[in-house]
Amino acid sequence: MSKNKEINSQFLSELSNFIFNNSDKKIQSLICDLHIADIAEIIEELSIEQATYLFQLIDEERSAQILVEIEDETREHILSTLSSKEIATEVIKNLESDDATDVLSELPKEQKEEVLSLIEDDHASDIEDLLNYPEDTAGGLMAKELIKVNENWTTIRCLKEMRKQSSEVKEVHTIYVVDDQDKLVGTLSLKRLLLTETKILINEIANYDIVSVIATEDDEEVANIMNKYDLIVMPVIDKTGVLLGRITIDDVMDVVKEEAEKDYQMASGITEDVESSDSVWQLTRARLPWLLIGLVGGLLGAKVIGIFEIDKNIELAFFIPLIAAMGGNVGVQSAAIVVQGLANESVKINTILSKLVKELGVALLNGIICSTIIFGATFALNYPIDLSLTVSLSLFSVIVFAALFGTFVPLTLDKYKIDPALATGPFITTVNDILGLVIYFLIGQSILV
Amino acid sequence: MSKNKEINSQFLSELSNFIFNNSDKKIQSLICDLHIADIAEIIEELSIEQATYLFQLIDEERSAQILVEIEDETREHILSTLSSKEIATEVIKNLESDDATDVLSELPKEQKEEVLSLIEDDHASDIEDLLNYPEDTAGGLMAKELIKVNENWTTIRCLKEMRKQSSEVKEVHTIYVVDDQDKLVGTLSLKRLLLTETKILINEIANYDIVSVIATEDDEEVANIMNKYDLIVMPVIDKTGVLLGRITIDDVMDVVKEEAEKDYQMASGITEDVESSDSVWQLTRARLPWLLIGLVGGLLGAKVIGIFEIDKNIELAFFIPLIAAMGGNVGVQSAAIVVQGLANESVKINTILSKLVKELGVALLNGIICSTIIFGATFALNYPIDLSLTVSLSLFSVIVFAALFGTFVPLTLDKYKIDPALATGPFITTVNDILGLVIYFLIGQSILV
Repeated sequence: MSKNKEINSQFLSELSNFIFNNSDKKIQSLICDLHIADIAEIIEELSIEQATYLFQLIDEERSAQILVEIEDETREHILSTLSSKEIATEVIKNLESDDATDVLSELPKEQKEEVLSLIEDDHASDIEDLLNYPEDTAGGLMAKELIKVNENWTTIRCLKEMRKQSSEVKEVHTIYVVDDQDKLVGTLSLKRLLLTETKILINEIANYDIVSVIATEDDEEVANIMNKYDLIVMPVIDKTGVLLGRITIDDVMDVVKEEAEKDYQMASGITEDVESSDSVWQLTRARLPWLLIGLVGGLLGAKVIGIFEIDKNIELAFFIPLIAAMGGNVGVQSAAIVVQGLANESVKINTILSKLVKELGVALLNGIICSTIIFGATFALNYPIDLSLTVSLSLFSVIVFAALFGTFVPLTLDKYKIDPALATGPFITTVNDILGLVIYFLIGQSILV
Repeated sequence: MSKNKEINSQFLSELSNFIFNNSDKKIQSLICDLHIADIAEIIEELSIEQATYLFQLIDEERSAQILVEIEDETREHILSTLSSKEIATEVIKNLESDDATDVLSELPKEQKEEVLSLIEDDHASDIEDLLNYPEDTAGGLMAKELIKVNENWTTIRCLKEMRKQSSEVKEVHTIYVVDDQDKLVGTLSLKRLLLTETKILINEIANYDIVSVIATEDDEEVANIMNKYDLIVMPVIDKTGVLLGRITIDDVMDVVKEEAEKDYQMASGITEDVESSDSVWQLTRARLPWLLIGLVGGLLGAKVIGIFEIDKNIELAFFIPLIAAMGGNVGVQSAAIVVQGLANESVKINTILSKLVKELGVALLNGIICSTIIFGATFALNYPIDLSLTVSLSLFSVIVFAALFGTFVPLTLDKYKIDPALATGPFITTVNDILGLVIYFLIGQSILV
């Protein structure tokens, strides 16, 4: 049982050694028992030359699968070492249509056509068909391989046809039932088929209550639907209802993970999809945009402090960090709640107005609690009473304002079809920082004189 | 085809109306075509009294499923309106063991035993067994219902036994192959079984290359394994290898989503798992901890500014917001990269040291770029040259320091088995804010004099 084998640095250095010495037999015995996902993980840890060397030692059925699992950059390099004929007969031939399409779409246009001409007709036309769908749609996620039976067949004919069809499908999840126009009408559970021994018609045992998507549907919506209805595999149809393919949940899980990671990175001020294994320059570039916005915000903040002539009320300087930090914090908290609500669609039914009212309640409560605490604390710490009052009043105003702003911005972005997660990033924090300062100094000037 | 029907406010007000007038027939015709997931969504939008009224109009097979889908609070209320007998015969009877266990575990201890005594023996012993596993383990996620065949059976006997077993399983995903000691040895694909017509033995067509988990394994690890190996269903075994149950991916998808949401909320300063539909008090409570830490940080910041006698160098006040914000931003960015790396386990192989070195590279690069820009900008804006120099040098130091700190803290937390996502929350931001100020004033004092 090759269960989740631990790939440690000892294993890796042994492997590197064998690769260095071209000890092909030893390498093969080291990796022959490993799962393709483990080999893919190993390949990511090797240099690109070592990875390419290792790759050509793996049998073609496994190597094709591995190619799908590894990262774009490594895959691109390995593909560039293969001829079009090798790609067609060793890679594409061993992949289901969805994975084959993903690999093929990364090739240069000319080579793509060359490879397609070398694949057997059925497979090639499936792939050509899939190449037409954008990557982030249901069509871009689906595979064409499936088991399809006509509702007017008997169970016996059905079993016979299934045997024929199942040779080209890796795993049978669901049997789709279509009418004479090839339109999807239902599904047939293997369980029902197993329990039914007589020669009855498929339409008597089929399940006609099915959830499907149209091929042009957005991939995030596909993920939401599959998650909501707890589907493991979902059929894809065209506008007229004709069955085109099916999407399995492992592909959708990647969409969910990527989406969650994107939102998380956005909230942390990282603008590109990066991993800790990326290069220093990639990592730097992904972080610069927020930092630059922060710089502009800082310069504006300096301007604000200058305009309000801080030298007349020097003690106001003490609480600049407090006011700035709290405005940013509250704004991000409010925005995050809205962003997550939008992602889970729980916001849809309620209106923007009721959101704002509720957020106002939360903000008032937080504002009262925090400003009371800060008034008591600054008083106890012997700051002048008018300064305590200024800080406490400003904090209250900043919390309420930042919360409303943090709620309003992502809702507005979403309305105009802009990713609301942008709101949890630099924009709200920086704007709140500055507006917080303005509020603070306005209140300070009128109280302290 | 009841496909993802749009539940709008018009639909809801019509339904509320029918409930108000006790128009049971009209209600039933309104919801009879809906998927259970849609009804669950509707129930969440109704008042708890309306929800309970609606619930008792739904046929028992669907109502049991709906009960699993809705939120804890609503479920608790509906369960409290049912007798133990009703829970046993209408709810638990219609659920697979994993869902049945989830529902049962929410009942008070006495009622739990009463309900268990009213369930048929097989189902009850499965549930009692599952109740022993903590919710966040493989055992807590698994269902006991599965199709199991002996490796020494013929395909004919296998099909016969499968027919018998499949009556209690909702859907057949995989057939598990065990030896005479009931130990899991492999799986059998339905496809292989369909393609094999002769009376050969199971062990000739079984797949012996399987991935499984032990029942005590952590649920996040289960999610990682299923995701890595692209599994739709995974067998669960005990320490000796005996097959106990199976986990399907839809349950794991919930774990992945919850984990991602938790990290996201943590990064946004929200400490409890809340949704925008929660009460004002719940939402307030979830946000207060970060705000309170922010308050303490702000007070410490005021102390720092006081100690360094800002009145001697008033112009330092201008750039307090800039320095504080940048320290916090950089720290969170660095921490987020590490947290995500740890979640994806890509950090495992590399050592802490190499992480820190890389992060240092990114920080130096970001530091040089940002401090050059700020030097140019402040110079162009006619700030005194020694102030420009102070700000620029401080910014560089703060960026480098915050990045190292942001990398080091989550790695250390993880080492001591504390959730590293804590690091992206208030702690790093606040500490960086204050240490940034200290660095700024130290540099300022020595340059400006």
